[in-house]
Amino acid sequence: MPTPSPATTRLSALRKHLKAQKLDGVFVPRTDAFMGEYVPTSDERLRWITGFTGSAGFALIGLTQGALVVDGRYTLQAPKETKGSNIKILSLDAAELSQFLGGFRKGSTLGFDPWVTSVAVARRLTKAVEAAGHKLVATAGNMVDAVWADRPAPPANPVVVHPLRLAGQAVDEKLALLAKVLRDKNCGAVVLTDAHSVAWAFNIRGSDIGHTPLALLRAIIFKDGTAQVFVEKSRCPAGGLGKGVKLVDPQQLTASLSGLAKKHWPVMLEAAQCPEAIRAILAKAKIAIVEDVDPCSFPRARKNAAEQAGSRKAHARDGVAVANFLAWLDGAAADGSLTEVAAQVKLHDFRKATGKLKDLSFGTISAAGANAALPHYHSVGKTGARLKRDHIYLIDSGGQYEDGTTDITRTLIIGSPSAEMKRHNTLVLKGMIAVSMARFPVGTVGVQIDALARAALWRDGFDFDHGTGHGVGSYLSVHEGPARISKAGHVALEPGMILSNEPGYYKPGRYGIRIENLLLVTPPAKIKGGERAMLGFETLSFAPIDKRLIDEVLLTKAEIHWLDEYHAEVLRKIGSGVLPETKPWLELACAPLKHGTLGEKGT
Amino acid sequence: MPTPSPATTRLSALRKHLKAQKLDGVFVPRTDAFMGEYVPTSDERLRWITGFTGSAGFALIGLTQGALVVDGRYTLQAPKETKGSNIKILSLDAAELSQFLGGFRKGSTLGFDPWVTSVAVARRLTKAVEAAGHKLVATAGNMVDAVWADRPAPPANPVVVHPLRLAGQAVDEKLALLAKVLRDKNCGAVVLTDAHSVAWAFNIRGSDIGHTPLALLRAIIFKDGTAQVFVEKSRCPAGGLGKGVKLVDPQQLTASLSGLAKKHWPVMLEAAQCPEAIRAILAKAKIAIVEDVDPCSFPRARKNAAEQAGSRKAHARDGVAVANFLAWLDGAAADGSLTEVAAQVKLHDFRKATGKLKDLSFGTISAAGANAALPHYHSVGKTGARLKRDHIYLIDSGGQYEDGTTDITRTLIIGSPSAEMKRHNTLVLKGMIAVSMARFPVGTVGVQIDALARAALWRDGFDFDHGTGHGVGSYLSVHEGPARISKAGHVALEPGMILSNEPGYYKPGRYGIRIENLLLVTPPAKIKGGERAMLGFETLSFAPIDKRLIDEVLLTKAEIHWLDEYHAEVLRKIGSGVLPETKPWLELACAPLKHGTLGEKGT
Repeated sequence: MPTPSPATTRLSALRKHLKAQKLDGVFVPRTDAFMGEYVPTSDERLRWITGFTGSAGFALIGLTQGALVVDGRYTLQAPKETKGSNIKILSLDAAELSQFLGGFRKGSTLGFDPWVTSVAVARRLTKAVEAAGHKLVATAGNMVDAVWADRPAPPANPVVVHPLRLAGQAVDEKLALLAKVLRDKNCGAVVLTDAHSVAWAFNIRGSDIGHTPLALLRAIIFKDGTAQVFVEKSRCPAGGLGKGVKLVDPQQLTASLSGLAKKHWPVMLEAAQCPEAIRAILAKAKIAIVEDVDPCSFPRARKNAAEQAGSRKAHARDGVAVANFLAWLDGAAADGSLTEVAAQVKLHDFRKATGKLKDLSFGTISAAGANAALPHYHSVGKTGARLKRDHIYLIDSGGQYEDGTTDITRTLIIGSPSAEMKRHNTLVLKGMIAVSMARFPVGTVGVQIDALARAALWRDGFDFDHGTGHGVGSYLSVHEGPARISKAGHVALEPGMILSNEPGYYKPGRYGIRIENLLLVTPPAKIKGGERAMLGFETLSFAPIDKRLIDEVLLTKAEIHWLDEYHAEVLRKIGSGVLPETKPWLELACAPLKHGTLGEKGT
Repeated sequence: MPTPSPATTRLSALRKHLKAQKLDGVFVPRTDAFMGEYVPTSDERLRWITGFTGSAGFALIGLTQGALVVDGRYTLQAPKETKGSNIKILSLDAAELSQFLGGFRKGSTLGFDPWVTSVAVARRLTKAVEAAGHKLVATAGNMVDAVWADRPAPPANPVVVHPLRLAGQAVDEKLALLAKVLRDKNCGAVVLTDAHSVAWAFNIRGSDIGHTPLALLRAIIFKDGTAQVFVEKSRCPAGGLGKGVKLVDPQQLTASLSGLAKKHWPVMLEAAQCPEAIRAILAKAKIAIVEDVDPCSFPRARKNAAEQAGSRKAHARDGVAVANFLAWLDGAAADGSLTEVAAQVKLHDFRKATGKLKDLSFGTISAAGANAALPHYHSVGKTGARLKRDHIYLIDSGGQYEDGTTDITRTLIIGSPSAEMKRHNTLVLKGMIAVSMARFPVGTVGVQIDALARAALWRDGFDFDHGTGHGVGSYLSVHEGPARISKAGHVALEPGMILSNEPGYYKPGRYGIRIENLLLVTPPAKIKGGERAMLGFETLSFAPIDKRLIDEVLLTKAEIHWLDEYHAEVLRKIGSGVLPETKPWLELACAPLKHGTLGEKGT
């Protein structure tokens, strides 16, 4: 992707257009009309207008002023990327936006594009804008698009079938299940506005955006189990998408929505996922609406047996690539000259060498030294920084395989660690192990597990400013709801859900630590000598954890036992798959902690 | 209190009265018109009509059928106490009540007394009753009172001043603070319907109910800092209750509420605490109402320096009594003939011997063997069970002192424990220590800390069905909101809050374990070698934890260190205060774990 030209030129163009449209400002969200984490280049409006490359946030561009609201992940990155644009960086604290809105002349008219703004966000913006004495109006057309001369065409790539042996459940079964949910909730239809839900419900995948194998589509599912998918026939397999599934040209979306007959009322939509424009179309046609959770989101999160088996295979394959990389890195990085980009390219090559890689599941975070202190760092320039000796190197990466999505982070020492690095890494590891070992009763929610990941860090006066874990899709998004392990994790963890476990520690300007495995929630099971059946986690990710960064004294016997068992399992699972030259390294890397660590004598 | 005569006679009388009133049934809650945990004998309607002695729950008595809804604490106790009454015991699961309501003939008229039913509960009942196709009506007068011939007179005991040196903040300062909250929230007045709030705001205490030193009063506070307290002048100190505080006869409550002038609008009330009758009076007078949290509840929970100092003193004093008791018990219980009641009387005597005890803070739970498996057990009969050899004995008790409220549980072995008892006790202790040692950032809520208390139990397949901790008042209720350490703990723990830390384990029919200390939340403070200021807990309770019930192998070094440090502190705090004959016992009980435990050779 070309580096954006100075944001200031584009901002001037936008402001000119706003003036012509009699607007005092416009909201520019990161989201596209599908509200997903990744957007096609054609929809990277926030990046195009502000230079900000983060995966969440929104700008408010006024005629003379501008602000960008970002979450805690981007407070360091956003000012750098928007430098020179005179855009003010605001936190999620509503008071900051409210103060900024106060800077507009009273009675300003601010615009928003209802296609790229969800119902829920539109409501929040309306409230904030009106509280400041202004007016929020839906614009006809997107203000940024109007001045984005060389805007790429939106993607319309082929829709491919996700085979039943991997999906594990046929489309008609899924539609029957969703139809039952609709009937139980007295709804006539649901508008699926989340392309992940469409992918799940119709067992299809695509390539409209990077990192997530999605076709950007919408659908309507009716309570009788029939459905309409809004997609050009030319993009679809010759056989269509299943019995009772009608393909409707996306141009007909508005007409189809407006024409929903009374027998299909009320129509369900999810306020957090549905574009405000769609709600407005239904409302204008006086169609009864019920807001509820997307009925695909829970069944999609609870992976079935085929999806679980696929994920295990994908992870074993991915672990081989990661182990080959880590073994290679130990040699290649030893002299301190390797670069972040060279390292991440090499890891990508190892993943490609599996012959099964479809895509990376997100942009690799290959972060040397101080860069690792930015949890969402991406290397700058052609090479990025060098992996200096006696510095930490953090690599957070994942692959999209047809049978599963992976996401793994390892933190390594190039050379020798300081005592402080070992201490911080060990505290993070304690949290990561506490979650891995956790057993918990039915009904336990993410916020409870999150505390276990932090207790050791907290006790010593540390913390990290992101969640402990996110849900992961099945050859779908690497960030999938509804469950998560975080302070905001209020959804019960259910068997079959796949979640990441990635506590961290970040020392600004110095180094960052994060250790991440994916976990599969296991069904309630009796524990030997125990009384109550407990859920737990099966670890899916297999690659060594750097023992050179561990201060053994800080670990309990149970933690050491977990680590040794984990490493023994890594060796069992991926030992036979790695390159011959990786094997001796892997054996040493997976040896029990008390038997010494890699390079203990060498460095 | 006399044992209730057979519930059946009373039920017949009530049903006759219901019929005469053209009611098909009536709700009988445990609450009185003040919604507190303890109610005067005159208000123990639920007990009188059903025999159920628990501290929460409600009955629905129909003309031929009856149900009692209780929480998980009472599922074993309720059927025993209501035996022979043909009352069905229901859990809190709304579906059970809904099914029971379905058993009434369609269109039934069910009554409730709006004075003993909160606004929030009245709403929930209305919803449930209407969903079942019936009608809920507020009764004029209480249906139980109508047939309760020998109902005692409601209490009206003297109101006493809680001295400033213990309250730590003068009434006019508190009223100024509350008035500011009202102004900030654009309210004109608040009706304080919680007697605890009245006690806190006006620095008064009383003796209208057992265990909590309350006068059952209501008040109105205005946004100018003046107030009305609804109390007979004759009950109050000669000097009144403070400048700007008007004493109004409780008979005038309805008139005062109805007459609230427009300048006092809107009037704030808390739906969970305010009797529906009061809301209805305001609504009938067309007075604007705002529902919000009782403005006293957070400041009351954050104990000031004087209250904290008082609590420390009260706990040191109480710890001496508990230690004297535990030392005595070790000898007195050795032959297996001591009874639960004799033991609890002895502990009461030791507390009385401090010369400062005002009351017990709740009915002591003195539970031998299998009785300890009932978390809310109270001894039956004149003696209760015997403390048999090689059985567990659990005692959960507390005192009301003018300077503080205590609540402490210790679990002891009489004779020798089984390996299983030691294992279970040690797992509970691990949770209790995890909470005691926890440090946590600003904003941490109870549910996060709750998980720390359970992790060790969960991992081995155990759990306990009550919260880990409740807030505790300052010479007020032993169960005080708004913060708690439980799955429902969504309020941030703030410096100055006092909470219990009492994980447990219950083996039905065999034994129960609970270890409880009170904790004071400490302000954010830097940790040596750490980066972020963290809140934490100062332990307030000081009495030995039975080392004979500990399996040292299951403890980490950090846990052993905590226990040894705790015991050293117990000895320092209460060693000089205990009886001469207690001293050698206490020294051994407080010796480091590795130095051996009490009775290790003797028994």
